[in-house]
Amino acid sequence: MSVIETTPSREGLPLLVIPNCVPVMVKAFRALLPEFDGLCRVRLFTDTMLDEDILARRMKGADSVIVVGFHVSDDLLKTMSQTVRCIAFGGTGVDNYVNLEKAHEYGIRICNIVHYGDAAVAEHAIALLMEITRRVGEMNADMHEGEWQPLNGTELYGKTMGIVGFGGIGQWVARIAHGFGMHVKVWSHHPHVEEMQQIQAASVESIHDLFESSDVVSFHLAYNRHTKGIVTADDLAALRKGAIVINTARAELIEKGALAHRLEKGDIFAGLDVFDTEPMPEVDPLRVVPNTILTPHAAWCTDQAVHNAVRQCVDSIRDFYAGKATNVVV
Amino acid sequence: MSVIETTPSREGLPLLVIPNCVPVMVKAFRALLPEFDGLCRVRLFTDTMLDEDILARRMKGADSVIVVGFHVSDDLLKTMSQTVRCIAFGGTGVDNYVNLEKAHEYGIRICNIVHYGDAAVAEHAIALLMEITRRVGEMNADMHEGEWQPLNGTELYGKTMGIVGFGGIGQWVARIAHGFGMHVKVWSHHPHVEEMQQIQAASVESIHDLFESSDVVSFHLAYNRHTKGIVTADDLAALRKGAIVINTARAELIEKGALAHRLEKGDIFAGLDVFDTEPMPEVDPLRVVPNTILTPHAAWCTDQAVHNAVRQCVDSIRDFYAGKATNVVV
Repeated sequence: MSVIETTPSREGLPLLVIPNCVPVMVKAFRALLPEFDGLCRVRLFTDTMLDEDILARRMKGADSVIVVGFHVSDDLLKTMSQTVRCIAFGGTGVDNYVNLEKAHEYGIRICNIVHYGDAAVAEHAIALLMEITRRVGEMNADMHEGEWQPLNGTELYGKTMGIVGFGGIGQWVARIAHGFGMHVKVWSHHPHVEEMQQIQAASVESIHDLFESSDVVSFHLAYNRHTKGIVTADDLAALRKGAIVINTARAELIEKGALAHRLEKGDIFAGLDVFDTEPMPEVDPLRVVPNTILTPHAAWCTDQAVHNAVRQCVDSIRDFYAGKATNVVV
Repeated sequence: MSVIETTPSREGLPLLVIPNCVPVMVKAFRALLPEFDGLCRVRLFTDTMLDEDILARRMKGADSVIVVGFHVSDDLLKTMSQTVRCIAFGGTGVDNYVNLEKAHEYGIRICNIVHYGDAAVAEHAIALLMEITRRVGEMNADMHEGEWQPLNGTELYGKTMGIVGFGGIGQWVARIAHGFGMHVKVWSHHPHVEEMQQIQAASVESIHDLFESSDVVSFHLAYNRHTKGIVTADDLAALRKGAIVINTARAELIEKGALAHRLEKGDIFAGLDVFDTEPMPEVDPLRVVPNTILTPHAAWCTDQAVHNAVRQCVDSIRDFYAGKATNVVV
C-alpha cells in the first residue's frame, strides 16, 4: 500500500480521501490531481482495500470521498457522516452500494458517473459475439502451436440482433449491429422512437418474443428489484437452435441457474462477462458447459472507460467544492 | 474419394464435371444439383485433389467444369479444350489461375464468382481486430483453466480506421467501422464519392499518408502485378506506436519479410489471415513475433460465403446451358 498526498501541509483546505483504488485507476487519478490545487487536499490510497474498519480509519477527517467499488454499509455511512459532505461513487448503480435515503438525511451529496463505459461494454459484447461466430482466439492459439486448421465461421450480416434494454449501452450495441448489416429488434421499458428509426430497429412486446425471433440476444438492462430474474428459463427455452446469448450486464437478470442448464443442451451459444459469484469459483457449471465463451467481468475495463470514470469522479468533487452540481444523485 | 453422379444414364445430355472439392462445399453443391436436371449430367468428385493428370482424367468428356481452387496450367487447359466449352471458377481472381487469352482462343467461356465473401472477409477482419483490442480468446482460455484475470482493453470508438482498397470488402469494413464510431480514411485507385460520403470517410493521397494517420490499417486490395509489394517497409515504419495492421487480403501486398521485421520491434500489433506460404510452415517468424494474432486463411470460410460461392458457380453453368451469360469473364 502506498499513499499519494497533495499539499498535506495546507490544513486550511478541505480534505478529499480516496480510501482504496484499483491499479488501472491509480495512474488516471494521479494525472488529474492537479485540478484540485487550491480547492482541497487529496489523500489517495493505492491498494484494493475492502476492510470496513480500515476504510473508516482512512477516511477520518475527510470532507469528501471517492468510493471505488466498495459497499458503504449503513454503519460506515454513519461514521462517515461525522465529516463527509460529498461522496462521488465510481460507478452508475450507486443505489446498490449506498443507502441514498440515509445519505440524504445526513445531508451528504451523492454523485455517480454515467455512460463512462458505454463504448467499452458495447464493444466487448460484440467481441464476445465474434469469438463465437469466428473463433479467432481459438485459431490463434492453434497457430501459435504450429498448426494450420481453418475453422468454419458464420456471418452476422443479415442476422437478427435482439437487444434487451435500450439505454446508452443497448443503443451503442444496436448501432454497431446495424453497421454489420444486422436487423435490430429491441425490448425496452421506454420508447426511443428516434434512436430506433435511425437504425431501422423494430420494437417487440415482450422478452419472450425477442428470444423467439432473434439470432443473437444481448442484455443491456440495469439491475434492480424490477429486473432481477427478468429473463426466465421459459424465455431461454424459446431460443432457436444456434442462437447466441450475450451478457455483459448482470448475471442476476437471468433466473438463477437457468442459463447453465439451457447451455447443457448444446444447441445454443453464449458469451458471458458477468456471473452470479465474482470472481467466479474455480469450479463452476459455466466453466464446463459447451459453446460458451467467458471473460472475467472485463467489459468495462478499457483505458478510455477508466479515464472517463476517473474524469467524472474528479469533476463531481471539484464542482462540489466550486459550488456547482455535477452528476448529483441526491 | 467418392463420386456423386446425377442421371449418369442420360448420355444424350452434356456433362458437367467438378473434378475436386473441399468438404465444406460438398454439401452446398449436393443441395443445388437438382437445378441441373434436364440441362446436363453432373459428376462431382468430393476429395481435394491437386494432381494434374488425375484431374485431367476426371474431366474427360466434360462439356463444362467447375474449378475449385486448383491452377489450370496451359497444358491442362489444352487437354480440357478438346471437349470443355465453359469453366466456372470458384473464386474471383481467375486470371491468376487460368490463362484467359488462351481460353478465349480455344473458345472456352470463363466465369468467376464475385462478392460471395465480402461479408465473411470483412467480419473476419473486425474479429481479428477485436481479439487485439479486447483479448476475448485469451481471457476465455484462461477462464476455462479455472482462472479469473481481467485484461485491460482498448476501444475502437473514436479511433481512425485506414482502409487500403475500397472495393466490395473494403467498403463493407468501412461501414462496420463507421458503426463502431470510428473515423474512416481510404486509399483507393478509384473514387467512390457516394459510398464515402455515406460514412463520412476521408480520402488520402498515398498509402504512406494512410499509415501515418491511422490507428488501424486494413488491407482490401486485389493482388496482381500492380499491387505486389505495394506496402513497403517504409510505410510500415510510419505506423504510430500501438497501431494495428489487419491483413485478410494477400500477404504479397506487403514487401516480403517487412511485416515480421516491423513487428519484432514490439510497438505495433497485427491480425493476419494470409501468409507468403500457405499452409504456413510450422516454424515461421510470424508465429513468434509479439502482439500478433494469426488465423489460417479462414476469413472467407463462413457457411454463407460457401453457399454464395457454390450458388454462383451453379448459376454460371446452368445459364451457360440455358443460353444466358452469368459472371462471364471471357
